[in-house]
Amino acid sequence: MSEARNTERVMRMSEGFSWEGASDAPYKEEGTHFRDVRRVNLAGMLGEQAAFHLRYFEIKAGGYTSKEHHEHVHVIFVVRGEGDILLGEKWQPLKFGDVAYVPPGMTHQMRNDFREPFGFLCVVDAVRDKPVVEGESEFDSICGE
Amino acid sequence: MSEARNTERVMRMSEGFSWEGASDAPYKEEGTHFRDVRRVNLAGMLGEQAAFHLRYFEIKAGGYTSKEHHEHVHVIFVVRGEGDILLGEKWQPLKFGDVAYVPPGMTHQMRNDFREPFGFLCVVDAVRDKPVVEGESEFDSICGE
Repeated sequence: MSEARNTERVMRMSEGFSWEGASDAPYKEEGTHFRDVRRVNLAGMLGEQAAFHLRYFEIKAGGYTSKEHHEHVHVIFVVRGEGDILLGEKWQPLKFGDVAYVPPGMTHQMRNDFREPFGFLCVVDAVRDKPVVEGESEFDSICGE
Repeated sequence: MSEARNTERVMRMSEGFSWEGASDAPYKEEGTHFRDVRRVNLAGMLGEQAAFHLRYFEIKAGGYTSKEHHEHVHVIFVVRGEGDILLGEKWQPLKFGDVAYVPPGMTHQMRNDFREPFGFLCVVDAVRDKPVVEGESEFDSICGE
């Protein structure tokens, strides 16, 4: 769907946390700085008149997102499974319903050391800077871009 | 919590969809244009550097939000129970994981005709216009303000 979508809509979730009509991007199964992450753009990127974007990220068992930082903030709300978030130098557990706030410039990463998929909403400003991946920089970052 | 909160944080959800440290506003049990709705401000209203606000709304069995419209948009993600949303003149069902987009100026309302609480996240621009309640206007609107 590439057309502008500033009209009302309801996107129903089906089994496996998929939404009809939403782009579901299968990222590389393995990379040097992220692993086993899928991303679904839910709102804000299709011509909607919003100052924010709403995305769903899901990390498979054993997967992780890029370790990165940027000036824009993340607001995260967990909707599936459990995992951990690195905020600065401290890992903290997250489960369904937990909210995490990543302030400007803070190094962060998400990982799933559990058996079930770890899924979370991530809200960001529509206008934002590009993430800086820490450790390796040859690939684009995926969470927060 | 009234201090600025532009630092990292994790807010854990406890039973009954409550978050320690978050304001949980018990709205009037009964009003003329809304009924049995609670609201929790989760992110964006405490000094965070974000262009959006993330709120959790919950409608008890038999409750409903204001029928209203405004120029700012709503992005809704259901996280508890099920309910219905009015978009324009059409009621549509919503359940866990469903996403609804309310475009500028569209009349909308949420209701819960089920036995369990109906809870949803609602993301809005940080800077936004005030809702116009339809039908009755003597009370402030609660969802979208």
